[in-house]
Order: sequence, then structure tokens, then C-alpha cells
Amino acid sequence: MNAASASPVFALPGPLALDSGGVLEGAEIAYQTYGKLAPDATNAVLVCHALTGDQHVASPHPVTGKPGWWERMVGPGKPVDTDRYFVICANVIGSCMGSTGPASLAPDGAPYAMRFPVITIRDMVRGVIALLDGLEIERLHAVIGGSMGGMQALSLAANWPTRAERVMVIASTARHSAQNIAFHEVGRQAIMADPAWGEGSYYASDERPDNGLAVARMAAHITYLSEAGLTAKFGRRLQDRPDGSAGTKSFGFDADFQVESYLRYQGSGFTRRFDANSYLYITRAMDYFDLAEEHGGRLADAFDGARARFCLVSFDTDWLYPTNESRHVVHALNAAGAKVSFVELAAPHGHDSFLLEHEQLDRVVRGFVE
Amino acid sequence: MNAASASPVFALPGPLALDSGGVLEGAEIAYQTYGKLAPDATNAVLVCHALTGDQHVASPHPVTGKPGWWERMVGPGKPVDTDRYFVICANVIGSCMGSTGPASLAPDGAPYAMRFPVITIRDMVRGVIALLDGLEIERLHAVIGGSMGGMQALSLAANWPTRAERVMVIASTARHSAQNIAFHEVGRQAIMADPAWGEGSYYASDERPDNGLAVARMAAHITYLSEAGLTAKFGRRLQDRPDGSAGTKSFGFDADFQVESYLRYQGSGFTRRFDANSYLYITRAMDYFDLAEEHGGRLADAFDGARARFCLVSFDTDWLYPTNESRHVVHALNAAGAKVSFVELAAPHGHDSFLLEHEQLDRVVRGFVE
Repeated sequence: MNAASASPVFALPGPLALDSGGVLEGAEIAYQTYGKLAPDATNAVLVCHALTGDQHVASPHPVTGKPGWWERMVGPGKPVDTDRYFVICANVIGSCMGSTGPASLAPDGAPYAMRFPVITIRDMVRGVIALLDGLEIERLHAVIGGSMGGMQALSLAANWPTRAERVMVIASTARHSAQNIAFHEVGRQAIMADPAWGEGSYYASDERPDNGLAVARMAAHITYLSEAGLTAKFGRRLQDRPDGSAGTKSFGFDADFQVESYLRYQGSGFTRRFDANSYLYITRAMDYFDLAEEHGGRLADAFDGARARFCLVSFDTDWLYPTNESRHVVHALNAAGAKVSFVELAAPHGHDSFLLEHEQLDRVVRGFVE
Repeated sequence: MNAASASPVFALPGPLALDSGGVLEGAEIAYQTYGKLAPDATNAVLVCHALTGDQHVASPHPVTGKPGWWERMVGPGKPVDTDRYFVICANVIGSCMGSTGPASLAPDGAPYAMRFPVITIRDMVRGVIALLDGLEIERLHAVIGGSMGGMQALSLAANWPTRAERVMVIASTARHSAQNIAFHEVGRQAIMADPAWGEGSYYASDERPDNGLAVARMAAHITYLSEAGLTAKFGRRLQDRPDGSAGTKSFGFDADFQVESYLRYQGSGFTRRFDANSYLYITRAMDYFDLAEEHGGRLADAFDGARARFCLVSFDTDWLYPTNESRHVVHALNAAGAKVSFVELAAPHGHDSFLLEHEQLDRVVRGFVE
């Protein structure tokens, strides 16, 4: 167990070969499991987390004390039923929740910081495959992921086609668009512009690049929500003022509007649970993600010989990874002769819908996993 | 003439009363004119600029040397024909191109910085009305504006309904949405997080909050472009590398993708021509803009008794101020019994389309102004 993550930690038996040509030595993966692995090891379901997610999918986060990020989806009797399935969720390489990342100590005893190698989505999945080998799980009953988790699910299906029977990809994409890259670049520039970042070597310092990281989170957070959802939730409503007066403008630069206050809260809260360098590395991995390019430029070729059943889910108000991106994957899977189902769900909350209460999503997940 | 702006400067004859309840003493407005005012002063066309715009609508910018920002629209024989019309463009109060703003000297001889009063769109227009009074122009042939310029045109029409015969509002809105406010708040937080900002008192310092301002510009710039436009222009194309190798990833944090390089360039270029405090004040004015709220909550009431002809133009790929926002204004004008025409133009480039080559827009403007 690792005290920081309160999770079991798997030490990779050998160096992890990376897409960059480098290797990561002595990598560890923190993970959580729920339910019991069947004696024949055929009931394992891998859940892959998103950019700022973690392995605590169905149990409280040990630091924040908040419920697991997908408790409504994973647990006894839930759509991913832990009475029947052995659910695994692993913190991705590069993150900061117990798996090896830029905040981890390098072999020389100092934190990697920016010496950490740049990784890809496929590198993250390489780590997970090593974990599955360690757990002696040859073939997953299913792999499921939303957002960056969906990228991992696609990468696993494309590169290790025998390792999963079912592949569920929610609110995701097979490639990062120019706009996706642009938003991530704004976040990275915000972090790197913070003097406290200090070329990434802030771990021994009293100051961390919290200001830059908060701005990065704020910019990203807007992309997770729909315009209509923001309007419904906040509109142009003003904050109650400290003096108790409501609905008046300050004619200053305090957070007058509720949406400003909400964003500031999202930004500052994020800095308490996430490492700025991890944010740089993981956004980079997402920007590099282009499954077609990995397979000669034609997405269908990525799924050549795929035997798994696929299910793609998108949300109609998701403008980060819009329905067209899922449809693009579906067409490629069709061209590759794979079994695929696809559903676009109506949801008011944009990209974040995959994390929120959504009965239809629950039904789709339950039906596909069974 | 003001050397910095190379523009005539109009000194307001009295204090400018502000929506905040405060006043601005000794305010000046830098402006440009093109063409000749008719003896009866009936051929004046006011062009209102956008957030980061200036008065140099149809002549080269004196600092950057670049052509005027709307030279294709305003000039001899152009849709706004300076052979026929006397065109005025004034730098808004709060900006930094010659009109009084936070970088200007307060009566105590030091820059206002954050002592500058928070202003509104209506305050900006109050300044313009004073300028029109000074120029002895009682009634404009037309007022035209895109984006924030459109907000000024709407504010002028609503609050000074006898001052313009024609009101043209392009790619704009009668209120800032929660998402609009959110993006501006990210930009403001990026500026204020920059230690060089120093509560706005950086004018005497060697350092300016250029890093924060660049990040603010980058975030805003994404909202000016459409997703499809970004994909067409950049896609996932990689930069040529300094060593001449093209199309390879650096597996680092340099600008690998062309879209990253483009955004960085937009951000850093902006810091050379714009004042960070002005950015704070003008975005605040835009966020406060809600023409209905100013008029008792019903937008139609803002146009009660309007005699002007209105023309609203939106672009189908503008997600900053989408067509629905223009339609909302059109419905209010209809309800108020005003004469209004409305066109949604197809354009690939999102919000920025109003500044770019667009033959149909040219025709609409020419037809409406005549």
C-alpha cells in the first residue's frame, strides 16, 4: 500500500518501453479493485479514468473524502455490478495519485519533474497491460472509459485486440482536434507562465504553481460544460455580497457573477488535489493521441481483425468531443467489420454528462456489460 | 494629436457620469475620421470597434504599421464609402489607444491603474455621444459595429434613439452569456495571477504582466474561431522543427503542433499592442452588458419608440455570439415595432468572420448603409 494513494501498488517487473523511444524504469501503478475475480479470471472489467481522474472509481477518495468518481455506475447491483464483476481501475502513468509520474522520485532520489519522459495514451495502456499480466488476467470481460478513459479503451482494443471482449467508449475521440489541442495549450502556457512553476522543479519549494494550474483548470472546465448548461445553472445571476446585499454589481473585479465564483472555486479546489507537472504530461499525451496516425493513417486499420464488441456513446451537447468524433470511430469499426453499437444520448450538461446522473447511460452500460 | 495614438483627441467638456455612480473627470477620446462631413452633417457613419480594436479602422495602425482593421469595408468605393460618408471611429473609454483608460494619468499625475472606475458599454457610448456633440453631429446616418462594437450600436440605439437612422449589429449580442463571462473570467484570472501585474500598478515597472495577458488572449482567441476553421487551418499538422525535420513529434513541451505555435504567436503579439489593465476593464464592461436588464428586464422595452432601421447579421459558425443571440434581438425589435432585417451568413471562420473577407457581408453592409 502507498500511504498517499491508499491503494495497492503494482511494480512493473521490467522497464516500460515508451512511444518516444525512451523507457521508464521501476514504474509503479496504483490501482483499486472491487468485487472478486472468478477462478477462471473471465469476469474482470477495466475502468479507465479521465485526465484528472484516479483509481478511486467506487470508493471514497482517501485525500478529499469524496465518494468515488463513478459510484453511481460501479458497485453492488450497479450497472457495472461488483457482485458479478471484478472491477479494476488503475491510476495512469504520468498522474499523481500513486502511479509513477513527474512528482515521483527518479532513480537518483530526486523527483523526476520535467525529466519525466513524455508519454502517450498507448504508453499508459502499456502500463495497464503489465498490471493485467501481473493480475493474471488474460482477457477482460470489458474495458470501459469516458473521455481520456475512452482513448485508453480504444488504444487497448487497437493494440492488444485479444485482451478485451467488450470495449465501451463514452464521450471520447480517436484523435485530438486542433481546438482540443488549443485549449490544452492555453492550460500548459498558464502553468508554465507561473513563476512558481520554475521549469517544473517546485517540489522542494514552499510555492507551487497553483495560480497557473487554477487558470488551466478554469479554461478546461468551461469545455466540460455546455453553454446551455451554464446558462441554466448560472445565467447572469449575481453573487450574494458579503454585506448581504444580493443582485447588485460591485463595479469591481470581485466575483460578481455566480459563474465567476464557481470557476474560481473549481480552479483553486483542483490545485489541492492535482500536480501541475502531471497536468502538463497528461494533456500532452491526449494531444498526441491519434489512433489512425499510429496505424498508417487509416483509422479502420487500427481495428483490423478486432474481435471485440464495441459500444460508442456520445452526448448531444458535448462540444469537447462531439458526436461526430464518435461517429468517425463507428464508421472505422464498420469498415473494419467489427461489431459495434452506437448511441447519442440527449443530456444538458455537455462533456461532463458521462460523470453525472443519467439513467439512459446507466441502462446502456448495464446492457452492454452483461 | 496624441503621439501615441497619432489620432485627433477630443477632450470631453465636462465630467463623464458613469453607470457605477462615479464620474470620470477630464476624459479624452482619440478618434479617426475618413471622408468629409456634409454641410448639413447628415452623412456621418459611426463605426464602433471590438474588445481589442482601435480607431484606425481604415488607415494604418501607427504602432504596428498594419492596415486598418476594416479597410476592406471602409474607404473610397468600399461598402461604407468614404467618398459619400463621413466615417468616425473612436477608441473606447477604458482602452489604451489614446482614449482615457487605466494607463492614462489620473488628475494626481500618476496612472489610474486599478483606480480607474469600472465602466460599462453604455459609459463607452456616453463618451461617443459627447464626441458627436463636439463634432456637431446630431443624427448619424448609421452606426455599425461587430462584436463589442455591436453592443455599442445597440446601446446607442436603445439609450439615444434619436441619434442614429440606421443601426447595424454584426456578430454580437444584447447580453453576455454565462459562457461568455466564464471565458473572460479565465483571462482576467490569468492576468491577475501574473506577479508582474502587481495589483495593476506595473506602469513604472520594468516588467509587465505579459505572460498573463498572453494566456488571456490565447483563451479568448480560441473563442473567435470555429472548430471547423481551426481544423481546416491547422488540423493536427506538426511544425517544421528547427533542425529541418518536419512532421515529427518532439516528445517535449515545445510547440509541436502548428496550432500551438499560432496561439503562442497570437498571445505574445497581443502583449506588444495592448494594456493588461485595459483588458480587465473592457472585458468587465462586456460581462456587465445586458440591455434588457438596463430597461426593466424586457429587451423589447429597450427599443420602445425606436425609429431607426436595424440590421442584424450573424455567422453560422460563431459560437461566441451564436445566431440565437441575434435572433433574440430581432424578436425584441419586432415586439417593439421597429424596422429590422436579419441575415445569418454562412462562414467557416466563426466569430472572426466579421473581420475577414466575406463578399456577402460586404453586400449586406453596402445595401444597408445606402
